[in-house]
This record gives sequence, structure tokens and C-alpha cells, in this order.
Amino acid sequence: MNEQSTIQRLINELSKLPGIGRKTAERLAFYLLKESDNVGRGLAEAILEVKQKVKFCSVCGNLTEGDPCGICCDPRRNRKIVCVVEEPKDIWAFEKLRTYNGVYHVLMGVISPLDGVGPEKLRIKELLKRIEASETEEIIIATDPNVEGDATALYLSKLIKPLDISVTRIASGLPVGGDLEYADSVTLSKALSGRRPL
Amino acid sequence: MNEQSTIQRLINELSKLPGIGRKTAERLAFYLLKESDNVGRGLAEAILEVKQKVKFCSVCGNLTEGDPCGICCDPRRNRKIVCVVEEPKDIWAFEKLRTYNGVYHVLMGVISPLDGVGPEKLRIKELLKRIEASETEEIIIATDPNVEGDATALYLSKLIKPLDISVTRIASGLPVGGDLEYADSVTLSKALSGRRPL
Repeated sequence: MNEQSTIQRLINELSKLPGIGRKTAERLAFYLLKESDNVGRGLAEAILEVKQKVKFCSVCGNLTEGDPCGICCDPRRNRKIVCVVEEPKDIWAFEKLRTYNGVYHVLMGVISPLDGVGPEKLRIKELLKRIEASETEEIIIATDPNVEGDATALYLSKLIKPLDISVTRIASGLPVGGDLEYADSVTLSKALSGRRPL
Repeated sequence: MNEQSTIQRLINELSKLPGIGRKTAERLAFYLLKESDNVGRGLAEAILEVKQKVKFCSVCGNLTEGDPCGICCDPRRNRKIVCVVEEPKDIWAFEKLRTYNGVYHVLMGVISPLDGVGPEKLRIKELLKRIEASETEEIIIATDPNVEGDATALYLSKLIKPLDISVTRIASGLPVGGDLEYADSVTLSKALSGRRPL
């Protein structure tokens, strides 16, 4: 039936989204069909607008409408401290803190040989150029605290330390409000080895 | 920041979808931003196309691009049997069986006083008109087997029975492949009271 093919196409497109399976895609499609035209059009226009307007900042790799991005252009930001993150959305997490005043550099991923991602696919060259061109004093490596993130941090520190720049890594340990009893052993041993004098 | 507002708008639109919270909406938005332009455009166009082309069938209430829908137009369908369902997607469930040969009537909901849905908001008038105008012999009420669905079924049967038309309800009981031990008591008592001679 022809009417099914249009809906089917929408279901196919929806099920391409991460974490959305066939059944959820069907539910979403029928929701969009049932709701007023505004809901569907609003979503479609928001997607098109975001794809059209939002680009990556040529300096740090953040998502932005203007280039360079608002953070790179902000004169109040301390350009001597660069926080290296995996994805643009990690910048959002830091910005929510409202305590970090440095700038960022997005790698666009982590070194992950199993997924075929080597260092050459990440924005590491851009980071080194940026360090050379500016008076960077500290690189904070804020990749995720997992195997790939740690490997990428180690790789970066080996590249950057010879340039006489301080390289730090965000702390791993027990999350605040957590319970020691339920902590996994890797996190607990990280928390132990990372202990600091009071 | 302006770049955040465009992305924020997309996140807002995505989080209007059922079952999609703030975090999932953010993940989907960043996925759409990261993927090639085709993925986003494909989804946006599919939404717009479906909203533009797909309407409700004026006869049965099914989703369709032409009016009346394919099922209502099909000459091989038995118009004497009408299966009453809550939503257009319920028709899909029946059509997947490939064994039902009658036609459908979509109520567009169920009687649910708590949600402010009375009989007048459903397509019941249309059903009665349809019964009067055609030679209907049986109405199969296939609303969901819950309180609202049962109440709607009862309401409909009281309206339709005086017209000398057979009104049936789909069976409730243990799902095939289920385990008696784990069945809830309401389902089990329904299965018991609905027992049939072998």
C-alpha cells in the first residue's frame, strides 16, 4: 500500500537514530501523525536549521553558528589553559559548571584501534599547531575515564610534554554522593592511588 | 550564546516526542549534528512528507494518502464485518496477521473520563452512520483489554445491539507461550471465565 510507504520511510529514518529501535520508531511516527501539524513541522524545521546553520569552530571544534565560536572569541577567557575533550557536547558539561575559565579543544573522538580510529583521524595536529602558535601553559586532558580515553590521554601527554607545557588529567575516583560499598574495584583502586593530602 | 539557541530549539522539539527525555533529546541532537547532512535532511523531509501527504480516511479513520483508504476501496474485503479499534496503528497489527478480511473503524481513542475523553470525542457517530448506511452483520470490538477499552466496548455494545447486529469482543486470556505460574490474577480469571469447550 502506498500510504504505508510514506509512513514506512519515516519509520526507517527514525530508526536510524541511536537508541531508537523499530517499535519506538513506529510509536514516534504515529505520534507525529496524530499530533497537530505544528509539532512535526517544528521538529523538521529545527533539524534543517541546525544542519544548515551550525558548523564546527575552526579553532576548537566546538559547535557554533559563527566562526570562531563564542568561547574562542570571548576576551575574558584564559587562552593559556586548554581543556581537551572528546566531543562538543563535553564542552556543554564543563560550561554548565560556570567555574572553568579556559578554552577548549575538541578531538572529535578517541584513539580506538578496534573501531579503526587512529590518532591521525583526531584533531591532534590542530591541537599541536594551536599550542605552537599561542602561549599555552596547561593542557587539561578531559577524555572519558575509560580504556580509550586513558590511552588517548597518555598518547597526548607524550606528544605535548616535550614542548615544556604542563599536561594534567581530570581526576578519577568515587563520584560524590556515592557509596564505597558499591564502588567497582577499578574505580576504588583509582580513588586510592589518586589520594591527596588533606 | 546564539549557537546554543539553535541546538537548544532542536533539543526542545525532540524532547516533545513521547518517551524522549532531556538527556535522550540531547544525545539525538548531537547525533544529528555529527552525522552527514543526509541523515538529518532525510528525517526532516520524511516528517514533512508524512504530515503533508498522509490524512485520515473519511470512512474508517485509517491513515492514508488517498481517500478512502486502500482497505476501504479493496473489493475483496468483506464489508459486512467491521473491526473497531482505538488507533490507526492497531490496524497495522491486524493487517500483519493476513487472516482478517473485514474492514475497520478507528475510534481515535477510548472513553476515559479521567483524561476528559467522553463518547462524543470519539468517532462513534460515524460508526453508527456507517452501520445504518451499509449491510453490516458483525462488529468486532478490538479496543485494548484494559479498563478504558472494556468500558468503551460495553458502551458500544449497548448502542449497537438494539440495531440487531452481532457485537463481539476479542478474547482476553493467557498469551500463547505464556506461563500460568507467572500470569497475573486478572488475566487468569479472564482466561478461566472465557473458557471454551474443546
